[in-house]
Amino acid sequence: MIRISLDVMGGDFGPEIVIPGAAKALERHPDITFLLFGLQAECEPYLAKHPKLRERSVFHDCELAVGMDEKPSAALRRGRYVSTMWRSIEAVKLGEADVVVSAGNTGALMAMSKFCLRTLAHIERPAIAGIWPTLKGESIVLDIGATIGADAHQLMDFALMGGAMARALFEAQRPTVGLLNVGVEEVKGQEEVKEAGRLIREANLPTISYHGFVEGDDIGKGTVDVVVTEGFTGNIALKTAEGTARQIAELLREAMSRTWLSKLGYLLAKGAFDRLREKMDPRKVNGGVFLGLNGIVIKSHGGTDAEGFAAAIDVGYDMARNGLTEKIVEDLETYHARRQPPAGPEAA
Amino acid sequence: MIRISLDVMGGDFGPEIVIPGAAKALERHPDITFLLFGLQAECEPYLAKHPKLRERSVFHDCELAVGMDEKPSAALRRGRYVSTMWRSIEAVKLGEADVVVSAGNTGALMAMSKFCLRTLAHIERPAIAGIWPTLKGESIVLDIGATIGADAHQLMDFALMGGAMARALFEAQRPTVGLLNVGVEEVKGQEEVKEAGRLIREANLPTISYHGFVEGDDIGKGTVDVVVTEGFTGNIALKTAEGTARQIAELLREAMSRTWLSKLGYLLAKGAFDRLREKMDPRKVNGGVFLGLNGIVIKSHGGTDAEGFAAAIDVGYDMARNGLTEKIVEDLETYHARRQPPAGPEAA
Repeated sequence: MIRISLDVMGGDFGPEIVIPGAAKALERHPDITFLLFGLQAECEPYLAKHPKLRERSVFHDCELAVGMDEKPSAALRRGRYVSTMWRSIEAVKLGEADVVVSAGNTGALMAMSKFCLRTLAHIERPAIAGIWPTLKGESIVLDIGATIGADAHQLMDFALMGGAMARALFEAQRPTVGLLNVGVEEVKGQEEVKEAGRLIREANLPTISYHGFVEGDDIGKGTVDVVVTEGFTGNIALKTAEGTARQIAELLREAMSRTWLSKLGYLLAKGAFDRLREKMDPRKVNGGVFLGLNGIVIKSHGGTDAEGFAAAIDVGYDMARNGLTEKIVEDLETYHARRQPPAGPEAA
Repeated sequence: MIRISLDVMGGDFGPEIVIPGAAKALERHPDITFLLFGLQAECEPYLAKHPKLRERSVFHDCELAVGMDEKPSAALRRGRYVSTMWRSIEAVKLGEADVVVSAGNTGALMAMSKFCLRTLAHIERPAIAGIWPTLKGESIVLDIGATIGADAHQLMDFALMGGAMARALFEAQRPTVGLLNVGVEEVKGQEEVKEAGRLIREANLPTISYHGFVEGDDIGKGTVDVVVTEGFTGNIALKTAEGTARQIAELLREAMSRTWLSKLGYLLAKGAFDRLREKMDPRKVNGGVFLGLNGIVIKSHGGTDAEGFAAAIDVGYDMARNGLTEKIVEDLETYHARRQPPAGPEAA
């Protein structure tokens, strides 16, 4: 049994997509039980339509919901202890849930998650890992926006945590890890990236296979299982790729509807188009995973639909079932046990 | 008449693509004259096939060609004064050519260009500007790899130079300029980016219209005419977009050839596919423009074909005809004349 806590009010549409999304995920994984944190009056009409979900859920009526545009600090002040977001996270802290999923605002979710769950020992800053569709399948890209300007040690932590996530998600024994850079030669790029490359190589971890530097176009190729970068560049790479995919889709749609011949061609090849759309469907890889906390937090896109939210639940299910947090803790301990004791005081 | 200097040996294929590329560009722009810098024995067979090009060219036999994998410092040591790359750049310095185009290695081309042409007054570091296909047409993105970690003042220079290039290329009166960031709110992102935003806003230049922050997906949408970022992120955004486009093309090809129905559909819609391919054709927007030097240098992709190289020549032609360098100098002077005199000594 996997226990999943949901922030039912999160996202642009709240219960309207979260509840049918949960129902879909439950069909695929009948061993899930849900803890639902919402405003009962708003959720009831949707829950009424999904009796099977209701049967596998415990509903917790909360005082308020965090707004999508609320600043993290304001959300924390107003919503701590009482909001649907906070209480859904707290369920993980209290050991009542194995993972929490929210489509709520990223900044607030990260702030509350850090405050409530705390970062793991040895981890300075948590990262957000995205799952990226590639020519070979899927890769993990981190950080996609939690950290701006991570240093070499933080990049090393990302490599390690990304590796643990790849083992949990892809069931790869020793996933390959690459550092995102502007060239593959050792002499190129930012100092932090070069230094991180040295750290990862020297750490020689048994749990990851360090590939070296990768470039922007290696992400889509699927050159490595895990692509490591700091959050500014990672966020821009992710959004640029999403923008390019949408741009091509729009140009294709436009081109296909221009003549009756191309319209007919489209009809005949519709199966092929559908297959492509499914492969590149951002909803299927919908789910940023917060790494580096005492517990698993999954962030779903705020604007997603029920199918997309269900996919985020799927990711959370896999992460919990395969023991993501335990894998990260284990890898962190292995790494730090091998290192020299640090000079300064350290959280333990 | 526009006088264009070519590094005939540059790129993966050298004269095999440069000479037919020049011939194509000449057909489109009969007022070009070329200065060709190459190794004569290797170029002769290709030149023999293009008598019209030969008629409009002066060939300069050189001692050596810079290798595609040569380190910039080594290329400069070995190739200064004598290589096809150096001499093609020098033609601009000597006032014999209006612009130089090379498909040679980027690092060496930038090093030689800086050494030979020198940077413009007020410019610390030159940038490479790329032309990006968007849903609305084309945008300029800079820097795409010359600078790692540009500071706020350099980003300000990029905004100004990118604006001048947009006026030269798109003939826009007052092009819109955006700063690439991880969110559009003023509080988000790197310190340098936020500071650059303040500088550009306060400068209130008559030649550009400052839009504010843009995100990765705004590039493909064509939200602004000019997207400003430092080179690390810019390079990764560019390569990620190229990778995504190739990934979708490959998935589409695969999907289209799977069944006889989709194959037939493809045939019927071939016109539409061709139109899309042409719109997204990287060869058509092939040409990084070096900005901030005393002269115009166009970098073509090393692996491009004759059509791609011709497109790079087209860009050079437009830049020279529309007075790119003069526009930049003018804008720099306007900007710096308005500012307080700087504290330290300054190049003039």
